[in-house]
Amino acid sequence: MISYGDLHALLARIFTAHGMPPGSAAILAGAVAQAERDACLSHGLFRIPGYLSSLRSGYVDGAAVPVVEQPRPGTMAVDGARGFAQVALEAGRVRLLEAARNLGIACISIRNAHHYAALATDIEPFADAGLFALAMVNGRSRVAPFGARRAVIGTNPIAFACPRASGAPLLWDMATSAIANADVLMAARDGHAIPAGVALDRHGEPTTDPEAMQDGGALLPFGGHKGAAIATMVELLAAALTGGRFGFEDDAFRYPGATTANAGQLIILIDPAATGGAGAAERVETLLTRLTDAGADRIPGDRRLAARASAAENGIPITQALLAQLQAWTYPPAS
Amino acid sequence: MISYGDLHALLARIFTAHGMPPGSAAILAGAVAQAERDACLSHGLFRIPGYLSSLRSGYVDGAAVPVVEQPRPGTMAVDGARGFAQVALEAGRVRLLEAARNLGIACISIRNAHHYAALATDIEPFADAGLFALAMVNGRSRVAPFGARRAVIGTNPIAFACPRASGAPLLWDMATSAIANADVLMAARDGHAIPAGVALDRHGEPTTDPEAMQDGGALLPFGGHKGAAIATMVELLAAALTGGRFGFEDDAFRYPGATTANAGQLIILIDPAATGGAGAAERVETLLTRLTDAGADRIPGDRRLAARASAAENGIPITQALLAQLQAWTYPPAS
Repeated sequence: MISYGDLHALLARIFTAHGMPPGSAAILAGAVAQAERDACLSHGLFRIPGYLSSLRSGYVDGAAVPVVEQPRPGTMAVDGARGFAQVALEAGRVRLLEAARNLGIACISIRNAHHYAALATDIEPFADAGLFALAMVNGRSRVAPFGARRAVIGTNPIAFACPRASGAPLLWDMATSAIANADVLMAARDGHAIPAGVALDRHGEPTTDPEAMQDGGALLPFGGHKGAAIATMVELLAAALTGGRFGFEDDAFRYPGATTANAGQLIILIDPAATGGAGAAERVETLLTRLTDAGADRIPGDRRLAARASAAENGIPITQALLAQLQAWTYPPAS
Repeated sequence: MISYGDLHALLARIFTAHGMPPGSAAILAGAVAQAERDACLSHGLFRIPGYLSSLRSGYVDGAAVPVVEQPRPGTMAVDGARGFAQVALEAGRVRLLEAARNLGIACISIRNAHHYAALATDIEPFADAGLFALAMVNGRSRVAPFGARRAVIGTNPIAFACPRASGAPLLWDMATSAIANADVLMAARDGHAIPAGVALDRHGEPTTDPEAMQDGGALLPFGGHKGAAIATMVELLAAALTGGRFGFEDDAFRYPGATTANAGQLIILIDPAATGGAGAAERVETLLTRLTDAGADRIPGDRRLAARASAAENGIPITQALLAQLQAWTYPPAS
């Protein structure tokens, strides 16, 4: 077991050892430590090797200085300068929140940035502050929508958060692919098949072999043509709207070892007090109670909150081997 | 065949004969005529009997005067006053567009209104004006998400529109239920079964009988738990955020003959010129071309545009029997 604070500090030391300035390292460490704490394991410590190899590859610039513009009062437009998207968001976050409060609605559009963490983490603080938040990010070309036989768009997660009277916000995120790419990576690592109907091989034929999907194949969107429409909308809102790159324009192949994508992100905030929704937090609770009463067995985020509570009481589970590995990574890489 | 203009005028006469003032009647006639012209038949003339019985029931007020407030610069909050949602939108539309241009982002939240038409129609003009638009509406309780065994939320459509360099905007809408309620109505009318896996009966058991679904049963969301999350998000954004009613709070049962729901709607507009996305219309085209090159066989909206082009050249298909029925409805109902 390790406490959230100790894990955060350890991760920040790893990222500074790999060339990130302390502020950026602390931001990124927070994103990873929160995912691990909340049992979103596919976006927690599992990803550290990918972060470090991406930093070493030069594809992502750990020392990037994002450039924030506010072209109009309600829009923060950020050039991530090839750094991590969480650092770009932090650069615009305070003005974004101020604009949302003053105008009732605001957005931040981030381009030229690398998002490799859980998307929900980005927006939870806005819901803590009483706002409704919607986030989308695109990524490396891995999904074939609308009958396409090869990958064009990213796994394109979407996240939603809103205040909830009973306590922590309602919060979820999900890939718009039928399964997350991280699940394919973990299946390949563990030698498992992936479910039928979620992936194509490099010839555009269905496959359940995670290696065949990774070797030039593609994932399918969730939910058939409706899911394909959502996934494609995310690609357009995260990239076309922000000035970012589409998944198929990512040039990670020029940077051996890179696992991230240079892509875009959009976050929209709305203040319910400005839209007729004062009392929204109670109304959210009313709907969720009604769902539970009708037999719903899975309110999104419940598992996350249970894991978080357990981590606060008992610490975050970690093996001694992994802890030793993390400590080893706090030494600068031989270069 | 009937021209779009003639159909629009005929529908406006029907709605005025049923108590709507001429401006409101023309707005609603536009929504219905556009759906019929674009071959969205489930939301076209098929719905006229439902409109008229809802008006006669007193549940919807055809003469409603919406009240528009602008609590903050970026938010138009509209009380639809129990009228049709399209009339409420029109009351705030000009200020909404102005705010989106000035601030880069704006939204309109509509409560206490009845939406019974195609959602895409509401936002197409904003994309024609160069904006990205996202719309959501909730409705009468018909869908059971997250393992619920009875209906709680609406079929909750979501629509997206954005400019496209080659001409008409990219535009789609879809119910977030596995199938649209209109498809259930048409299956019941025609004596067909509905697909397996999309509906429950009144006991919470799977059914393929459209009558059993209608008789106290429920539809399922599209796309499993991911679709359930999207569908529930729509319920929260369209109702909790706007101050509108949830699907399960609809009280149509007090108004025999009513087929509409008193619910909420949210529309968000973003100007790509304010978010780093100048040139977005060309970028949208780039992505769609790439999708087609990869074998995609179904770009959303293509069928709609083909039908629209055919209607412009040849007129809109209509039977003599239906035309006679429409003409009969232009006489005020016996009361």
